[in-house]
Amino acid sequence: MNKTSAVQTIGILTSGGDAPGMNAALRAVARTAWARGIDVKGIYRGYSGLLNDEIFDMEKEFTCDIISRGGTALFTARCEEFKQLEYQEKAAEILRSHNIDGLVVIGGDGSFRGAQKLSAQGINTVALPGTIDLDIACTEYTIGFDTAVNTAMQAIDKIRDSSTSHERCSIIEVMGRNAGYIALWCGIASGAEDILIPERFDGNRPKLENELIESILEKKALGKKHHLIINAEGVGHSYGMAKRIEQATGVETRASILGHMQRGGNPTAKDRVYASYMGALAVDLLCSGATNRVVGYRNGQYIDYDIEDALGMAKDVDQYEFEIAQILGR
Amino acid sequence: MNKTSAVQTIGILTSGGDAPGMNAALRAVARTAWARGIDVKGIYRGYSGLLNDEIFDMEKEFTCDIISRGGTALFTARCEEFKQLEYQEKAAEILRSHNIDGLVVIGGDGSFRGAQKLSAQGINTVALPGTIDLDIACTEYTIGFDTAVNTAMQAIDKIRDSSTSHERCSIIEVMGRNAGYIALWCGIASGAEDILIPERFDGNRPKLENELIESILEKKALGKKHHLIINAEGVGHSYGMAKRIEQATGVETRASILGHMQRGGNPTAKDRVYASYMGALAVDLLCSGATNRVVGYRNGQYIDYDIEDALGMAKDVDQYEFEIAQILGR
Amino acid sequence: MNKTSAVQTIGILTSGGDAPGMNAALRAVARTAWARGIDVKGIYRGYSGLLNDEIFDMEKEFTCDIISRGGTALFTARCEEFKQLEYQEKAAEILRSHNIDGLVVIGGDGSFRGAQKLSAQGINTVALPGTIDLDIACTEYTIGFDTAVNTAMQAIDKIRDSSTSHERCSIIEVMGRNAGYIALWCGIASGAEDILIPERFDGNRPKLENELIESILEKKALGKKHHLIINAEGVGHSYGMAKRIEQATGVETRASILGHMQRGGNPTAKDRVYASYMGALAVDLLCSGATNRVVGYRNGQYIDYDIEDALGMAKDVDQYEFEIAQILGR
Amino acid sequence: MNKTSAVQTIGILTSGGDAPGMNAALRAVARTAWARGIDVKGIYRGYSGLLNDEIFDMEKEFTCDIISRGGTALFTARCEEFKQLEYQEKAAEILRSHNIDGLVVIGGDGSFRGAQKLSAQGINTVALPGTIDLDIACTEYTIGFDTAVNTAMQAIDKIRDSSTSHERCSIIEVMGRNAGYIALWCGIASGAEDILIPERFDGNRPKLENELIESILEKKALGKKHHLIINAEGVGHSYGMAKRIEQATGVETRASILGHMQRGGNPTAKDRVYASYMGALAVDLLCSGATNRVVGYRNGQYIDYDIEDALGMAKDVDQYEFEIAQILGR
Repeated sequence: MNKTSAVQTIGILTSGGDAPGMNAALRAVARTAWARGIDVKGIYRGYSGLLNDEIFDMEKEFTCDIISRGGTALFTARCEEFKQLEYQEKAAEILRSHNIDGLVVIGGDGSFRGAQKLSAQGINTVALPGTIDLDIACTEYTIGFDTAVNTAMQAIDKIRDSSTSHERCSIIEVMGRNAGYIALWCGIASGAEDILIPERFDGNRPKLENELIESILEKKALGKKHHLIINAEGVGHSYGMAKRIEQATGVETRASILGHMQRGGNPTAKDRVYASYMGALAVDLLCSGATNRVVGYRNGQYIDYDIEDALGMAKDVDQYEFEIAQILGR
Repeated sequence: MNKTSAVQTIGILTSGGDAPGMNAALRAVARTAWARGIDVKGIYRGYSGLLNDEIFDMEKEFTCDIISRGGTALFTARCEEFKQLEYQEKAAEILRSHNIDGLVVIGGDGSFRGAQKLSAQGINTVALPGTIDLDIACTEYTIGFDTAVNTAMQAIDKIRDSSTSHERCSIIEVMGRNAGYIALWCGIASGAEDILIPERFDGNRPKLENELIESILEKKALGKKHHLIINAEGVGHSYGMAKRIEQATGVETRASILGHMQRGGNPTAKDRVYASYMGALAVDLLCSGATNRVVGYRNGQYIDYDIEDALGMAKDVDQYEFEIAQILGR
Repeated sequence: MNKTSAVQTIGILTSGGDAPGMNAALRAVARTAWARGIDVKGIYRGYSGLLNDEIFDMEKEFTCDIISRGGTALFTARCEEFKQLEYQEKAAEILRSHNIDGLVVIGGDGSFRGAQKLSAQGINTVALPGTIDLDIACTEYTIGFDTAVNTAMQAIDKIRDSSTSHERCSIIEVMGRNAGYIALWCGIASGAEDILIPERFDGNRPKLENELIESILEKKALGKKHHLIINAEGVGHSYGMAKRIEQATGVETRASILGHMQRGGNPTAKDRVYASYMGALAVDLLCSGATNRVVGYRNGQYIDYDIEDALGMAKDVDQYEFEIAQILGR
Repeated sequence: MNKTSAVQTIGILTSGGDAPGMNAALRAVARTAWARGIDVKGIYRGYSGLLNDEIFDMEKEFTCDIISRGGTALFTARCEEFKQLEYQEKAAEILRSHNIDGLVVIGGDGSFRGAQKLSAQGINTVALPGTIDLDIACTEYTIGFDTAVNTAMQAIDKIRDSSTSHERCSIIEVMGRNAGYIALWCGIASGAEDILIPERFDGNRPKLENELIESILEKKALGKKHHLIINAEGVGHSYGMAKRIEQATGVETRASILGHMQRGGNPTAKDRVYASYMGALAVDLLCSGATNRVVGYRNGQYIDYDIEDALGMAKDVDQYEFEIAQILGR
């Protein structure tokens, strides 16, 4: 027991889509809590498991050898009903029945909403941004993004080998939901000729495809051996695009949708290290009495925001960086 | 010049789909030839490039730092017209105009046919099995298979992380054309619950899907956290299967088609080493006067066959091994 | 219970140095046994743990998600005292007290001796070759070799980048104890200029170093940007060699000893697949009443030998392959 | 020709130890320059090559397919004599003879000094921080650090497998010269029990070893299966430490020095992306008339400093982060 801490027992759950580094984060939460003299309980399957009372005393062993593993040892699930007040009240009650007075939630925007509601129910909550999509406005870093980008980039490096051998055009679709960060990073990192992101797409597909067709013919004329197009999930339609581009250019064109491999895999060093610091900070925030906070990384520092404020922020792809990305692919 | 060799100038081309290790093979052909006092000419873009006279004197530098790279430094292309006699005659003439009296062809079944035709035109030819699909009957090893399997397996390991976290069923479609070797190896190596290969598929899709549905429900009842199905390209239809399985079982099911990443990437040690030995052997066969041969690896040895004989062979997945694969996934 | 099987309860232990793929092997032993209606007991820490009665009923869960992991979930240890008869008798007694009538031992030469002794004590035993060194004469494959070679090769690929940038000579020492297989494979796979293996080293170090110095100066004169020497542990002395070579040639020379990273890591597809088949075969051998056998892979087939016969065999690096390796590095 | 730019021809050199991402940086310099209508010349082998007039017109092809490769396509070398004024004057003269009025230098602290001297000689210079050691005070990011950390971490993950199987203590020495950043990151990322960095080492080796011995015995008593110590090059003495620790604790202890593999390898996404932006920014700074500047990344932004100011800065490991690292390894 820690007499100076505002909380005595911390619960942890992971929610929404899984992301590499979640294990590093939950390990850091648990170990920092123990170092502060605080008890730790694990909650399986996100808010859904919380409502089913899937709560256990976390032991040291649970946190061993997980830092290097993808996925989440606490499992994750979606939970539509948690948007309703009665379930939020029930969840708070269940947490109290386990003496959990502090809760760390690792997940995306939707998971933050849940943490906010539980805070309103009197449970001190801190949320950590866990998503490969980097689509959380209050932070320049989200747990899992670095691993996802490296996974996608390595797959694209391989596709490029084959694309070059066949002097082919390849469209590679990467994840990111409505955000283009994974596509932008992969585009720069793999030296792609074209990068398609929802933030710079006006919805006019024929125009987009005409621009691509021009770009392919122009670069072919310059002697390029392959043409890589990185396409964000938020733009999509890769298979159809490939067909129409091949017809229009006469250049063999193939599409690959990288899919769920981007969500897993051993986390990179950055994801392990940043997730660890964020997990530790979440505990120290709860100890100091904070609630309804989300941890972010901004301007080179770990900071925390009110969840409501965080959800109200907006961010966009930097225009200078996007232009440089286009210049470098030429 | 090598007075005891049956050939004085060796040409090299890569043909058909590219495969990791082709560079190791062509490097070994060139370096062994030089060590034997024989000249080497490179031919770009397979038989198509040969007909276009895209032939160059290969220098030492061309073979430096390529052993570790995927794809083929000689590029590759398909060439429908090469099936016609007049083009075969023209190709032999072009080769003779460059003093090429020996030719090494790296590719699959189709490429072997071309080598056979050129042999009939008086050019001494040796073919090497270069394909990720392992679908060449005369050999237990083809250049690129080991890399492709490892690439697919590593992607599946990542998908499994996410599949486990969400307690989901995942269908992963791997390459292999009409052969199930990549799927079988990936299935065993990733501990998949089910492995679908064309060699054991009777074409009855409803029956297949019913068996999968039973298997998923049975394993779910036993408490399995994920259910992996490795599906060979030759069975295909992964997206549709995923939808129907999800509807029938209520278990969230996602399909991933790994695609062209399986064709590229830095070759594994095995692909570099075996491709190197095969390349060296091809040269020593040509020196000894052999023609119309294909190099294989069988019963633990590098051997060579008459191309016609090789094309007439058949092979199948070993039944004991397939049964073990099924037992281990239970 | 399996009425037709010669054994009813199989024990498994891993012994000697660990090797990637041991987990795949022990998983296959357990799952094949269960499929045959046979009970499985795990034994921790090799023969040492056996003597301490560290034996447990293996459950399905123990074999989940380990196929992709390096090391051995059963731990391993050395056990000098097991060479004495009294300890062999005691071990057999302990095994009998757990109703273990069949034992699978995964390890190297030393571990086979132990299995032989237990067979003499009336316990049916089958041994699997688990060692990264490939130094077991009766088999062309040992569990872990493929992973170790790929790990070393990938490290060497990285060293080569730096070596080239600095136009430096690099000596890289790889594992293998008294055998040069890892060095030979790595040498070919990384395109090394020189490969040093104990099988081709007469103990005359000054002569060896003079040959290397000549080789470096000769290749430097030809314009090579780096000079890679792969040195087997069995030749050793890499740091001293680097110093003397640098003094004699004026070429900056650095040594790296890759060390224990070669023993770990996620196993390659080949190590997972071959280890799985070997594990299954071990069980089927025990079921059929075999004892005092070791499983090998030879001439393209899984086979089994009498342990005494196996220990009496000798093998050597193939001379044609070694010459080709030297030619390719020129 | 670009009429509004302060420079018309940009030279590029890489200097000091090579680092993954240098190729991404020099590619970005060249391509951004071309996009701005500026000519580009490559200089081989750093300041040494500059003094030897190893200067060439860079073509588009030089920058193709290098973004994914480790090392530096411009080679690198040390150059002691460049500290003398007469050589600096000579270098400026040589640059002028090639019409180079802007120079981008990619390297570490020592390379910045050279850029400063050339600026004093009237050549506009911008330096980029290229070193795996992260030991440049003005920036939170240096080109190559992220790749080096991931390379080391992956090797440590493998060593941990083996260390766990044998229940052994492992000391792993990572690079970093006088800075402990690589060690600190690897320590956190691999969940190491102890992390030794020069910034927190008072030079008292007996005291250090006694603390380690205590730590090992304490954790062994708690049932830990392995004990990982990450040791920075700046602390060193890993082999001797391993011997003394084994003697004092009775726990088998092995040391590995990871060595030069940490300098090479395909760069990570972060190193490719950040190096690309830094390269582009260097060109835009030169275009705007800047000289004697170094580009850094700080507080989430790319910024530039006067070289003299940058060399006068100091930085240290963050105390909160170091404490968390220690807590997490317990």
